[in-house]
Amino acid sequence: MSDLLLKNVRPLGAEATDILIRAGRITGVGGIEAPAGIAVEDGRNAILWPGLIDAHTHLDKTTWGMDWHENEREAVLRGRIDFERENRLEIGIDPHRQSMRHALGLAAHGASHIRSHVDIDTTHGLRLVEGVQETREKLRGIIDIEIVAFPQSGVMVMPGTVELLDEALANGCEVLGGIDPCGIDRDPKGQLDALFALAARHGVGIDIHLHEAGELGAFTMELIFERVRASGMQGRFAISHAFALGMNDHLRVGRLIEQIAELDIAILTTGAPSATVPSVRRLREAGVRVGAGCDGIRDTWGPWGQPDMIDRATIIGMRNGFRSDSDLRLALQIVSQGGADVMRLEGYGLGIGCKADLTLLEGQTVAHAVVNRAPRPLVVKGGRVVARDGHCIVGTP
Amino acid sequence: MSDLLLKNVRPLGAEATDILIRAGRITGVGGIEAPAGIAVEDGRNAILWPGLIDAHTHLDKTTWGMDWHENEREAVLRGRIDFERENRLEIGIDPHRQSMRHALGLAAHGASHIRSHVDIDTTHGLRLVEGVQETREKLRGIIDIEIVAFPQSGVMVMPGTVELLDEALANGCEVLGGIDPCGIDRDPKGQLDALFALAARHGVGIDIHLHEAGELGAFTMELIFERVRASGMQGRFAISHAFALGMNDHLRVGRLIEQIAELDIAILTTGAPSATVPSVRRLREAGVRVGAGCDGIRDTWGPWGQPDMIDRATIIGMRNGFRSDSDLRLALQIVSQGGADVMRLEGYGLGIGCKADLTLLEGQTVAHAVVNRAPRPLVVKGGRVVARDGHCIVGTP
Repeated sequence: MSDLLLKNVRPLGAEATDILIRAGRITGVGGIEAPAGIAVEDGRNAILWPGLIDAHTHLDKTTWGMDWHENEREAVLRGRIDFERENRLEIGIDPHRQSMRHALGLAAHGASHIRSHVDIDTTHGLRLVEGVQETREKLRGIIDIEIVAFPQSGVMVMPGTVELLDEALANGCEVLGGIDPCGIDRDPKGQLDALFALAARHGVGIDIHLHEAGELGAFTMELIFERVRASGMQGRFAISHAFALGMNDHLRVGRLIEQIAELDIAILTTGAPSATVPSVRRLREAGVRVGAGCDGIRDTWGPWGQPDMIDRATIIGMRNGFRSDSDLRLALQIVSQGGADVMRLEGYGLGIGCKADLTLLEGQTVAHAVVNRAPRPLVVKGGRVVARDGHCIVGTP
Repeated sequence: MSDLLLKNVRPLGAEATDILIRAGRITGVGGIEAPAGIAVEDGRNAILWPGLIDAHTHLDKTTWGMDWHENEREAVLRGRIDFERENRLEIGIDPHRQSMRHALGLAAHGASHIRSHVDIDTTHGLRLVEGVQETREKLRGIIDIEIVAFPQSGVMVMPGTVELLDEALANGCEVLGGIDPCGIDRDPKGQLDALFALAARHGVGIDIHLHEAGELGAFTMELIFERVRASGMQGRFAISHAFALGMNDHLRVGRLIEQIAELDIAILTTGAPSATVPSVRRLREAGVRVGAGCDGIRDTWGPWGQPDMIDRATIIGMRNGFRSDSDLRLALQIVSQGGADVMRLEGYGLGIGCKADLTLLEGQTVAHAVVNRAPRPLVVKGGRVVARDGHCIVGTP
């Protein structure tokens, strides 16, 4: 935990000022003379923002930094899952090396926290989780990683998976994942009952992938609502993707959102351009916690994505039809404060006493900083400079 | 028109070879010894592609390179149009300066041709067209610009506009534009009859903006089909945006596409992430000519966009749910050969005798080159090097 005087920065786009950091926390804001012996950085009038948060990604999957992975496979969800499980290690997607590259890429672009789903299946057991846990240890002080034990291949359809999830939660995974109880598992009651029992046993929250669209996804949400209410999991459940909330039935979606807000369920979006996605603004107006993530980047599923939450903010913004400066600010909040709300991070923000997890953004205004594609001039984690001009200066992939 | 030996490039991603250019045309492909006195460029094993084509943009609108334009206005189409018309010159959007910046940006990123709609309205008359025409003259030999006389504010709803369009077509605009005959003009028969009469008088094609979605846009398309057939305009009509083709009625869309193919109507798409967009693959499979464009970039309408057709290929690809290498190649074809098909460019391509309008792309494979966000190493127009590493080396904005 470091000391640092960050001069001439514009907090959240406001007037330029200085920020004093002591022992990794913000201790002063205003015109500040450098205390003796302290490191000083000139922010050159850049915008100061809390660390960006990738609250939905897959650190164990990317081919980033590897040779190009050719893909001529059919675009069917089950096929993608099975191909990846059967070929990932042979292709060379080493979970530790690749999660290092992915996480350092995010840090280089201003992220301070990651929530990563990591595959758990009967082929690999906990091996992929262990690779990402190794990365988490190596990157301590550079970027924080929270791991979701994620049954990518299904739960009920893959006997033995419940036991592996149980083991993962006993060995350092903070959150329990799930996936399409109808679409992938063909047994919604079975999967959801199993997940809620595991979560209760380990006292963890749940973050479920729900690609199910339209009425199917709405049905699964209703099953989730019943169980959140019955088990007292209010405030500790998250739905990732939630494509059903993008369906073309304003009233039906409104009733789902009412329950999501009432049960304090969080929504994670990637702004998927070819899917029906939830309206970020509608969710926020209903008081729902909304975070965002890059999802998988350049993996065996598809070629898209960058390890950059500003890039993700633009994808979410474009998909949501955002245009105004206020809209762009909201997109930026979703990839920062929104993720902190979902992960319930302590000490997040720019107030006195907050952790000094910060990034500078280049732009005349906040909106400009979202769209201008400039590298982050400086990234600070716990008061320590970890990246400059788009490149990490600590850690080696 | 220049001579050039381009060594060590991979045409369309194939094996590395050399390309000989004489008087601005490709005259040789293969292992070639440099003729005496010829300029030589080492392509360093980059992919060679024909010049990219922005077949739908608005060179007269961008704020690119200006101070950030704050926007807190409501997102209503008519309101955007009126605000822009009433404020554009006061804001400082000089049509010549800004079209220079926009066009040079496109050239820097590998584009060789632009079709630009340019606003014609009763406030500015032909002033905006004249600004872009000045740019077209200055950039001759750097990038080719085709101008569409575009009644952005409406035709029937703005008396005097037909006469201005008439004047524009008599003074160097190559194509006639139009806009939402129902949604903007409230008089579909009136606008379409006026446009077809103008096109017949000047012997030009038509490229109409059609934002009208669902059944309304389908109705307007049917009015267009009737008139294309009656006036013999087959092969000379284009529909930009065509959001109605993205509606959720597979059979209805199929019947519209059948007629579009039969009448050889071209479709221009921007892959608009928050609109219903046509399926590029479905159109191509029906034999329809499909081009693409960046549309307006960073203008009073909205903050999005880059003057870069590779960036646009990624937006179109993501919106179309593309994932495979073949998909990405199609996205790249849409922003190159597709635009040439729409604009009916002579001598486009990499064959012997084709014009040497070329760009290098950085990537292990074509698909990789689409997603990797690398600047274009070299851009050649008529055999002359016009840009290197993402920056124009000729022309000054």
